[in-house]
Amino acid sequence: MDLIAQLRSGLPEEAVLTDPDVTGSYANDMASFCEAGIPAAVVLPRTAEQVQHVMRTATALRVPVVPQGSRTGLSGAANASDGCIVLSLTKMDRILEINPVDRIAVVEPGVINATLSRAVNEHGLYYPPDPSSWEMCSIGGNIGTASGGLCCVKYGVTAEYVLGLDVVLADGRLLQTGRRTAKGVAGYDLTRLFVGSEGSLGIVVRAVLALKPEPPQQLALAAEFPSTDAACAAVCEIMARGHAPSLLELMDRTSIRAVNAMAKMGLPDSTEALLLAAFDTPDPSADLAAVGALCQEAGATEVVPAETAAESDMLLQARRLTLTALEAVKTATMIDDVCVPRSKLADLLNGCAAIAEKYDLTIGVCAHAGDGNTHPTVCFDAADPDESRRARESFDEIMGLGLELGGTITGEHGVGILKKEWLARELGPVSLEMHRGIKQVFDPHGLLNPGKVF
Amino acid sequence: MDLIAQLRSGLPEEAVLTDPDVTGSYANDMASFCEAGIPAAVVLPRTAEQVQHVMRTATALRVPVVPQGSRTGLSGAANASDGCIVLSLTKMDRILEINPVDRIAVVEPGVINATLSRAVNEHGLYYPPDPSSWEMCSIGGNIGTASGGLCCVKYGVTAEYVLGLDVVLADGRLLQTGRRTAKGVAGYDLTRLFVGSEGSLGIVVRAVLALKPEPPQQLALAAEFPSTDAACAAVCEIMARGHAPSLLELMDRTSIRAVNAMAKMGLPDSTEALLLAAFDTPDPSADLAAVGALCQEAGATEVVPAETAAESDMLLQARRLTLTALEAVKTATMIDDVCVPRSKLADLLNGCAAIAEKYDLTIGVCAHAGDGNTHPTVCFDAADPDESRRARESFDEIMGLGLELGGTITGEHGVGILKKEWLARELGPVSLEMHRGIKQVFDPHGLLNPGKVF
Repeated sequence: MDLIAQLRSGLPEEAVLTDPDVTGSYANDMASFCEAGIPAAVVLPRTAEQVQHVMRTATALRVPVVPQGSRTGLSGAANASDGCIVLSLTKMDRILEINPVDRIAVVEPGVINATLSRAVNEHGLYYPPDPSSWEMCSIGGNIGTASGGLCCVKYGVTAEYVLGLDVVLADGRLLQTGRRTAKGVAGYDLTRLFVGSEGSLGIVVRAVLALKPEPPQQLALAAEFPSTDAACAAVCEIMARGHAPSLLELMDRTSIRAVNAMAKMGLPDSTEALLLAAFDTPDPSADLAAVGALCQEAGATEVVPAETAAESDMLLQARRLTLTALEAVKTATMIDDVCVPRSKLADLLNGCAAIAEKYDLTIGVCAHAGDGNTHPTVCFDAADPDESRRARESFDEIMGLGLELGGTITGEHGVGILKKEWLARELGPVSLEMHRGIKQVFDPHGLLNPGKVF
Repeated sequence: MDLIAQLRSGLPEEAVLTDPDVTGSYANDMASFCEAGIPAAVVLPRTAEQVQHVMRTATALRVPVVPQGSRTGLSGAANASDGCIVLSLTKMDRILEINPVDRIAVVEPGVINATLSRAVNEHGLYYPPDPSSWEMCSIGGNIGTASGGLCCVKYGVTAEYVLGLDVVLADGRLLQTGRRTAKGVAGYDLTRLFVGSEGSLGIVVRAVLALKPEPPQQLALAAEFPSTDAACAAVCEIMARGHAPSLLELMDRTSIRAVNAMAKMGLPDSTEALLLAAFDTPDPSADLAAVGALCQEAGATEVVPAETAAESDMLLQARRLTLTALEAVKTATMIDDVCVPRSKLADLLNGCAAIAEKYDLTIGVCAHAGDGNTHPTVCFDAADPDESRRARESFDEIMGLGLELGGTITGEHGVGILKKEWLARELGPVSLEMHRGIKQVFDPHGLLNPGKVF
């Protein structure tokens, strides 16, 4: 029996797509510079049993499988390879349980992050992970890439909210990991092994997620700095003094000007760095006053604290527009994701400015500054081969700088295809050998998302 | 060359102990009912290189290695096996770095938990994990067992504070995992794989730990309840209403009476359950008032809030004495560590009472109630074979009940020898196969802590 017939034998008619015009639309996630192949089929299962059927079929026929969520990823991890089965989890989108006493939610992988966030809010609960794509991205994709977001500086990343998983293995068997209790140390932490594994070890079909009580609404301030160094010094001081901001973001001058050019935000062109801080504490005004004072001590020329949620939203608007504004600078962008110890943030930002000058490129940096997680965004003309080459080289040089500063090549976007060579460089040969050994245990035929990560 | 000569070729004279009177004192951790063998040697390396020498020697000669911290474990995970090398990390006890801006500490594995806690306090920082043995236990041991403690209900377990590790593998190679940045998703989460692996995958020789800002001093209340159900209902209500206590502990009537008998604490004998709650928030009195009201609504007969830190300490004294008091009931105890969803806490406690009656035994339960993590403690006369048998059976039955209630056999103490068969039952065959595969990747000759965990 051929692949399509075999897939159809355990899936409803409408769950197996083979029309090339349709399947072609599943070829890519949102990364630049990442090749994508043509899938043999796209399958849209609705149950764990159907996923098991797909994996049993794939193993029997030795066909590679590329799992996909909402394809908002930025590293090519969800890109199809030629002849693969694209396994889209988007139809498995039920919230199965929300339990305020145990503070957990049980969900299928296709649930959209924003849908879950709003649903738990109705129970007075909070699911913190908030990637920028939260209105579109799926929990399964968040788990696959261990997604971060703006709230991480206080609440941590997706990994810290995954308690247990149901996973379909490459051979179609079901593996349960973790627990639904607050604590548990029985056996190896397989749950965390799957989080961030980018679909290379198994297919998550159900997740038990930890929730927090809903915090008070956050209140923000914006602080303008005459230099990157001053802004980064303020970040270090805020964190060293024990503050717990729910958001601590930085925009460099290139980002500020791009936003100004697009949206007429009226940010002074003399501003070299903009810091945004927010608190969701019982008395955010007091925290903002303390942090505002630290900003001024560090050299801020202006500090604007919001007094209402609406004012906060306005202040954060500039940050939200940054990527769109940088995308408008040239025809294409490459978004980096280097994370350094926050004490090295100034070194990274200054290094990015030097790299931009060296390669004669526009590189805007916005950063989850409190976490030292930066998104240097290289703007270039994709139709210009030399500029494209320089873009790629500068992108790599930024990762090299991140590693030199004791950081990592990826704080939250993952490795995918984009950073595969760089992962090997970050991990080194011993770690890489252990990675390959683990991959072999879970996926002996190398069928799960081949060619990605390492 | 024989084992001892080979070990001595790369270690200082005083770092290799072979006198049976001395090595015998390294045979056990603090678990009951766990067998221990006679080690061939005890080694006390002071550097990662010396640990590498030990592991290279062990691999060359195929000698099993049992890693040890302070041997305060409660599951036999650190017990020697016959002819093994006991690898004690107690001499590697340096704090290498405390960094308030990056909020990290870098430590060797032999650092005592309390030593680290006090050292970071001096920098305005806080290392939350606080196992009861914190004055004696080592960070390496904490990492090996993913230790918990009283603070977990607010701050989580050891696992959440381990950012990166240096690990000596079975063959003596050095593996670096993780990072010193706040975020990072490069590759599989090998760091978490080692946390809680009970020395079965490698030897941790250095750890990067995350720190928190030091919170305000906590203030506690005690609430007396006429029934277990009422106390557990209060726990559920406290958590469902979004409170964030820094401690939420429960003592059952057996524990209360044992403490009364030993220390004349003056707790009324009519009290069926005592709840202790604490807050380290900016306004703990307000939080205590709110939680006190919830306790009263749930049926508390008396609520005593502390007004000073000294009063808090007095209230918590009863909890601290529980284990010692229960140990005084008979000649021996077995401490269980079952964790259930907190919504099932009452079911577990009532079940333990029924099991105590069925086996005609004294079983006192204290619990990290906010986490659903209970420590049913079976008191028995070790010289009485029938009572010992009943103790063991009741201990097992409590684990069975925990699993039935959707819980785990171990919330924080680990598996070791004590719960090996039960781990297999909790994990099931597919998970166990994956565990064995991972073990094989890191330790192909099965030399690291053989016979433990699974």
